[in-house]
Amino acid sequence: MNADDAALLEGLLEGEHRALARVISKIENRSPGYRELVSALYAHTGDADVVGITGSPGAGKSTLVDKLAETYRERGETVGVIAIDPSSPFSGGAVLGDRIRMASSVGDMDVFVRSMSARGTLGGLSTATADAVKAMDAFGKDKIIIETVGAGQNEIDIVRTADTVAVLVPPGSGDDIQTLKAGILEIADVFVVNKADRPGADRTVQELQEMIHLGSGGGLGAGGTGHHGADAMGDADDWGDTADEEQRWTTPIVETIATNGDGVETFIEELANHQTYLIDSGTHAQKVRQRYAEEIRTLLREDVHDILEDELAAAGGIDDLAEAVRNGETDPYTIADELLTPVEDCIDELEAGVENT
Amino acid sequence: MNADDAALLEGLLEGEHRALARVISKIENRSPGYRELVSALYAHTGDADVVGITGSPGAGKSTLVDKLAETYRERGETVGVIAIDPSSPFSGGAVLGDRIRMASSVGDMDVFVRSMSARGTLGGLSTATADAVKAMDAFGKDKIIIETVGAGQNEIDIVRTADTVAVLVPPGSGDDIQTLKAGILEIADVFVVNKADRPGADRTVQELQEMIHLGSGGGLGAGGTGHHGADAMGDADDWGDTADEEQRWTTPIVETIATNGDGVETFIEELANHQTYLIDSGTHAQKVRQRYAEEIRTLLREDVHDILEDELAAAGGIDDLAEAVRNGETDPYTIADELLTPVEDCIDELEAGVENT
Repeated sequence: MNADDAALLEGLLEGEHRALARVISKIENRSPGYRELVSALYAHTGDADVVGITGSPGAGKSTLVDKLAETYRERGETVGVIAIDPSSPFSGGAVLGDRIRMASSVGDMDVFVRSMSARGTLGGLSTATADAVKAMDAFGKDKIIIETVGAGQNEIDIVRTADTVAVLVPPGSGDDIQTLKAGILEIADVFVVNKADRPGADRTVQELQEMIHLGSGGGLGAGGTGHHGADAMGDADDWGDTADEEQRWTTPIVETIATNGDGVETFIEELANHQTYLIDSGTHAQKVRQRYAEEIRTLLREDVHDILEDELAAAGGIDDLAEAVRNGETDPYTIADELLTPVEDCIDELEAGVENT
Repeated sequence: MNADDAALLEGLLEGEHRALARVISKIENRSPGYRELVSALYAHTGDADVVGITGSPGAGKSTLVDKLAETYRERGETVGVIAIDPSSPFSGGAVLGDRIRMASSVGDMDVFVRSMSARGTLGGLSTATADAVKAMDAFGKDKIIIETVGAGQNEIDIVRTADTVAVLVPPGSGDDIQTLKAGILEIADVFVVNKADRPGADRTVQELQEMIHLGSGGGLGAGGTGHHGADAMGDADDWGDTADEEQRWTTPIVETIATNGDGVETFIEELANHQTYLIDSGTHAQKVRQRYAEEIRTLLREDVHDILEDELAAAGGIDDLAEAVRNGETDPYTIADELLTPVEDCIDELEAGVENT
């Protein structure tokens, strides 16, 4: 790591918000040295609770997130917010300004809000988000909230990496629940019916209750696994079977009115309950392991992609190779073998060398 | 290549259908030696015309394909059919039997029909389909028809690799055209309104005409590119600009009644016209190059995935690595670097070695 980055890291670890902002910008832009920076952050992480909040647009997510952050602050906890908006052309600064003003009762920078968009991040948005969470965790934020602007598949995939996922459901007819994408409902650890003073809220709560009841009865996947999205996390062990009955998590439903803060205390209580459940049941360790496995695979894929592009360029460029196939001089399998066999041989030699030492 | 595979290859090149069937089975199963076999096939390919036929279920695709194959056979051309059904649990034999019987007027095996499903093929269905096309091409089939059972994204991606794509539209209200996935309409080189004796056929033809008119006026993407799916083919050059006005392809609309053969001759004429257009305009060379570039990239991705899995296993397995990250002993970036830096060093050394010779 160069001296500038070392100073930046030191600033971040000492709690300078400007250093945190600059590190996240480096992560977004994949600036030179960002890998070493993130790599160094890891040793300082693991203390933050990460909460994901999603739901369809108009459910009142950002108002609730602001109230949640405000309440945490009043309790003396530090808070970082990452707002995921894959489609936004803006990233970082602009939205940051707006949201800081909304967290009205707390001082400037007490709630650090950062928006991340696909357009603003080179490489993958999910990798950048995971790295930004690490930066906030190492900084010392007690609570990190990942908030999605919409509820697209990308956003669901990202929010699912949080320890606890809250899904906001707007009150209304039962049709709303039916039409909510199955993928959203399945990742919920806590349901929030926001705008609970509106007509239809009671019915929405009742329908969610019925759905949860069906789910825990075996209708929605085996055991409790459907609640934690484990089956969507790749190589998840079927840990649901090993937890005894008392350690099952039944998704609670919280009613809130974010605009005046009603229900936010109860919401925070349920988030804390879920965190306790995760630790006590051993689920937390498993989730973290799955998340890291996913991060390792994603990084390897991205890195290898870069190596391959360099290899293709060194071999004359993909266009020339394709033209050579068209002319009957070679074929895709021969090209792949020619590019990759030397690499495999190298690896074999390296491994043989390691064994001989 | 071992002696058995060499004999198999010889059999295929000499026109033995049993050898062709066995080679395609090897491709599906990725049996040992399949790579060398496919690699050897390439030198014998390039003479077949490849036609893709897609459209929503119920449009009459398989009946039309049977009539098309039958008519080609009556003209003395040899025909191979690949039926793509990503969701089917069956592959190869079962459907083959049914379809052979349907091609009633021609002798056994004169039309070689093979179905391919995602479940039947290890690895990617699109790679297996491309390889099966190569096998039929090398065998000496004059016409190869790729037929999709449904019109899902997977099937569209595969059928798009054909030289000429025909999209079947069932007659009915204009709503049908509006709801046809945009992706299907955009890849059409020829529209076929099948079941043209049904009510609503004239209106469907008229609405397709209006759509094509709008498209060629610039409504549906610039120039003629929208008709050939070039913008979805990755790094496509904007070749549409270089073709002069006479070399633009205007998607024709053919009316057929597949059950009695009406319109099939006209359909064959339009397929031939498109083939001529492809050659004369230089589009064919470009399409083939793009297709090979895509095949090379796909193969490299698949191969590297296998290498990485081996590497991960050699490094102790992904679970142990993830656990080490959780324990704070390492981090994903360090793991990726440790795994890939030796690979990159190998490549650098190899390249330096090549330069010194």
